[in-house]
Amino acid sequence: MKKSLIALAVLAASGAAMAQSSVTVFGVVDEAVTYVNGADNWNGINSGGNATSRIGFRGVEDLGGGLKANFWLEAGILADSGSGQSGGASGSGLEFKRRSTVGLEGGFGEVRLGRDLTEAYKATSRYDVFGQVGLGVSRLWADANAVALTNQRVSNMITYVSPNISGFKAAVNYGFGEVAGENRDSRYVGAGLTYDNGPLSLGLSGERSNRGANSNLTRDVTAWALGGSYDLGVVKLSAAYRDSSAKIVSGDKNKAKGYYLGLSAPVGAAGEVKASYNRYEGEIAGADKHKADQFALGYVHNLSKRTAVYGTYAYIKNKDDGALGQTLGTAATLKDNGSQHGLQVGIRHAF
Amino acid sequence: MKKSLIALAVLAASGAAMAQSSVTVFGVVDEAVTYVNGADNWNGINSGGNATSRIGFRGVEDLGGGLKANFWLEAGILADSGSGQSGGASGSGLEFKRRSTVGLEGGFGEVRLGRDLTEAYKATSRYDVFGQVGLGVSRLWADANAVALTNQRVSNMITYVSPNISGFKAAVNYGFGEVAGENRDSRYVGAGLTYDNGPLSLGLSGERSNRGANSNLTRDVTAWALGGSYDLGVVKLSAAYRDSSAKIVSGDKNKAKGYYLGLSAPVGAAGEVKASYNRYEGEIAGADKHKADQFALGYVHNLSKRTAVYGTYAYIKNKDDGALGQTLGTAATLKDNGSQHGLQVGIRHAF
Amino acid sequence: MKKSLIALAVLAASGAAMAQSSVTVFGVVDEAVTYVNGADNWNGINSGGNATSRIGFRGVEDLGGGLKANFWLEAGILADSGSGQSGGASGSGLEFKRRSTVGLEGGFGEVRLGRDLTEAYKATSRYDVFGQVGLGVSRLWADANAVALTNQRVSNMITYVSPNISGFKAAVNYGFGEVAGENRDSRYVGAGLTYDNGPLSLGLSGERSNRGANSNLTRDVTAWALGGSYDLGVVKLSAAYRDSSAKIVSGDKNKAKGYYLGLSAPVGAAGEVKASYNRYEGEIAGADKHKADQFALGYVHNLSKRTAVYGTYAYIKNKDDGALGQTLGTAATLKDNGSQHGLQVGIRHAF
Repeated sequence: MKKSLIALAVLAASGAAMAQSSVTVFGVVDEAVTYVNGADNWNGINSGGNATSRIGFRGVEDLGGGLKANFWLEAGILADSGSGQSGGASGSGLEFKRRSTVGLEGGFGEVRLGRDLTEAYKATSRYDVFGQVGLGVSRLWADANAVALTNQRVSNMITYVSPNISGFKAAVNYGFGEVAGENRDSRYVGAGLTYDNGPLSLGLSGERSNRGANSNLTRDVTAWALGGSYDLGVVKLSAAYRDSSAKIVSGDKNKAKGYYLGLSAPVGAAGEVKASYNRYEGEIAGADKHKADQFALGYVHNLSKRTAVYGTYAYIKNKDDGALGQTLGTAATLKDNGSQHGLQVGIRHAF
Repeated sequence: MKKSLIALAVLAASGAAMAQSSVTVFGVVDEAVTYVNGADNWNGINSGGNATSRIGFRGVEDLGGGLKANFWLEAGILADSGSGQSGGASGSGLEFKRRSTVGLEGGFGEVRLGRDLTEAYKATSRYDVFGQVGLGVSRLWADANAVALTNQRVSNMITYVSPNISGFKAAVNYGFGEVAGENRDSRYVGAGLTYDNGPLSLGLSGERSNRGANSNLTRDVTAWALGGSYDLGVVKLSAAYRDSSAKIVSGDKNKAKGYYLGLSAPVGAAGEVKASYNRYEGEIAGADKHKADQFALGYVHNLSKRTAVYGTYAYIKNKDDGALGQTLGTAATLKDNGSQHGLQVGIRHAF
Repeated sequence: MKKSLIALAVLAASGAAMAQSSVTVFGVVDEAVTYVNGADNWNGINSGGNATSRIGFRGVEDLGGGLKANFWLEAGILADSGSGQSGGASGSGLEFKRRSTVGLEGGFGEVRLGRDLTEAYKATSRYDVFGQVGLGVSRLWADANAVALTNQRVSNMITYVSPNISGFKAAVNYGFGEVAGENRDSRYVGAGLTYDNGPLSLGLSGERSNRGANSNLTRDVTAWALGGSYDLGVVKLSAAYRDSSAKIVSGDKNKAKGYYLGLSAPVGAAGEVKASYNRYEGEIAGADKHKADQFALGYVHNLSKRTAVYGTYAYIKNKDDGALGQTLGTAATLKDNGSQHGLQVGIRHAF
């Protein structure tokens, strides 16, 4: 009883702050000094070397009877300049382009409406030891070749996520194309299946995004991916494969595929070392064929659960530095031999 | 004394969280699966079927002696895509275009500076049972015909709101035109008078927005509206009328007027059914004349005070589907017979 | 022990609210009714007459051993219209253009990465009794002549701030130009040295911003400034001087310099009166020479620590109202005699 009296006093005393318990303000500010070697060397400050800089507002409300409502609004930030980062696009005002959803969850699983990462993307990209950011990022899911593009995030989606059944979870997305008079145009359909049990984790994903009569570029982009990891304790091994293709106007297909291998290992109480290898292969129908190999090595030193300093080294080597040549940084260009290496050292703080 | 000791402990313990009591983070995420029938059927996810999706920051500070300071910053969100919704305009970054004010309130009433809903709009639009959003929205105040446009929100305003006197409240807005050398150009002046006493509620509003020599379209838009509701317990009845006209360059007047009838009734402990009828009439001087009838039916099921699921059905029938033809959704077009119907089912979550 | 029990109860009871202690939501909403006399008189509502309207999110995390991590995200607001104010630019969405940093601080001082006010700007602009906002603002640091522009804020910076040693503090900024293949182009280098001891405060600053081969305007803008204040109790006196020059393509130099004198004095328990005089001198190489005198008088009445009402009067007189003529407000123009005066009365509320 005394405890509840105190609790009441707390409620009385903290007023507005308690009223705030329905919303959590969260985010990350991550910036790194970056150097990229190439035909034109580049150095500067990059936002998000270890985790994407962001700010968000989220909450969960218990509706009783096992039912919960939730919302999630999350905006990307280019912390080096203070601009918003709108789902990849840079330089604009703050937008909740990383996630903007409302949902209901219960024994049946979860139903969500809005913009989010696709379940296909989430099911397999989670095996990237570099967390899909920074110089070491695996671009299997980014499709840097842009020959068979699928979006990591899609607007106007209905999402269903199943409950966890013996470690298995299935999730599907349907993204409306919202083109009047056309149900298929710009539509997105995808699914992710995951299995997580002890040291073993597996993910499988498939997706199709339609571009109808309104598009003169590509239509019916199809992609699938497979990934997994196994935690041996001293080291955690991970691997993934992704394949995507796009029917173009001529009827031919552009193709992209990629292989990923990664490992991460704890170093002492606060450190983590990680390494990855990526192979990218792309083909523009009847035109260009291309291969690139990427190696990355990283170290993260955790100063607390929320704060870390980190360093990342990455090297890329293109077998063909033509139109499909891949670079480590957007502002830098490849050397004559098609290679490039980069280094970044930064601070990541989560709140 | 014990209570204050505990309160002190609370203050000591909660630190920054208590410091936060000066600002409340609030908002709504509302999304609905929407289908609109017409010449070109449209389906997709709409933001704000039951309440406009938004995020805001507000607070009230007690200055002592009955005086309070307040601030209110509120930004609209297109939750289906994560973009900001800037006072009607879509697709841009987050802006506090819904409300951005600082004010002082006391026995004398309240003085506010900044951008806000006009008091004229608030005094009568509040009778719309669909809360001025979604497929069932009454467009009396939106003037969808755009022949005699007044803005629901105005920037650069001084606002005075009287204290409540026996249920009566008066409020006036003066919005500076901010055109150098011109005091009248782009100026807004409006007022709302409301009476709320037990089951009876009444509202009266009048406004004028000037467009001076700099405008080649219309000038001196004048509008007035009247509304009211009566709560019989089993059902609450509401009605409104709005009339607006705009002097155009020729000296003639464009005209728009609308009638609204509505009802809402509780269903069990958690449900609410609502229905409305709107008649829109518009006239472009010497050119087009137009009429449209709109019916809407809605059901809201409250899962908690903050969360609801809802469904809305609306039907519109134009007597003339020319330039002034009104549609239920922006992306859809009318059938040959000038009609259209739409349905939306969604989740609204407030935080 | 009882206290810690209570603290635990607080933690248990306040849940999410306590989790929020890692982030502080803060800001200012400041709006003023403003009148500016001139060739074309202007009146309206201005945002930020006493302090810039803004919203921000910041926090400090204790990492133990004297080490702390911090982050700071701050966006400007044009509170009169609700738009974001992006580091001076207006009318756009919310961006953290005022400050966007992550840092580590300890016995060694502080290292920060990101966008911020420059240390050169902070070391001396702090002597402006009008806090660098509103009609009375000293434009020594804004360089309204725009003949030798340096930025108050710079992106992509590494900042080092020394610990306080007997009242002395030194701080340096290095802002990457981030131009591929060019290390000097667009680079910023600056420093501020401050001394604060009892009633005496001094500041010295120097900076250089490079514009390399890519710029056809000016390159190698150099500026230095000196400022100080002395608090006599009944009145606080302050003064500053700033000099900037820009090498232009011809090899000649554009020049700008300014003198500032200010005073502020408490009036009763809640009031503060302040006055300032500024002399601006500018020269475009081989072309125009210009001088202007500005006087400002202000009164701030604090209703609480967070809320104040204020009034500011300012007068400017140009010796030459040509291309370099300075005005009090952007929307207004000078009288025939090159003068202008303005008045603003407003409310400032901090949260």
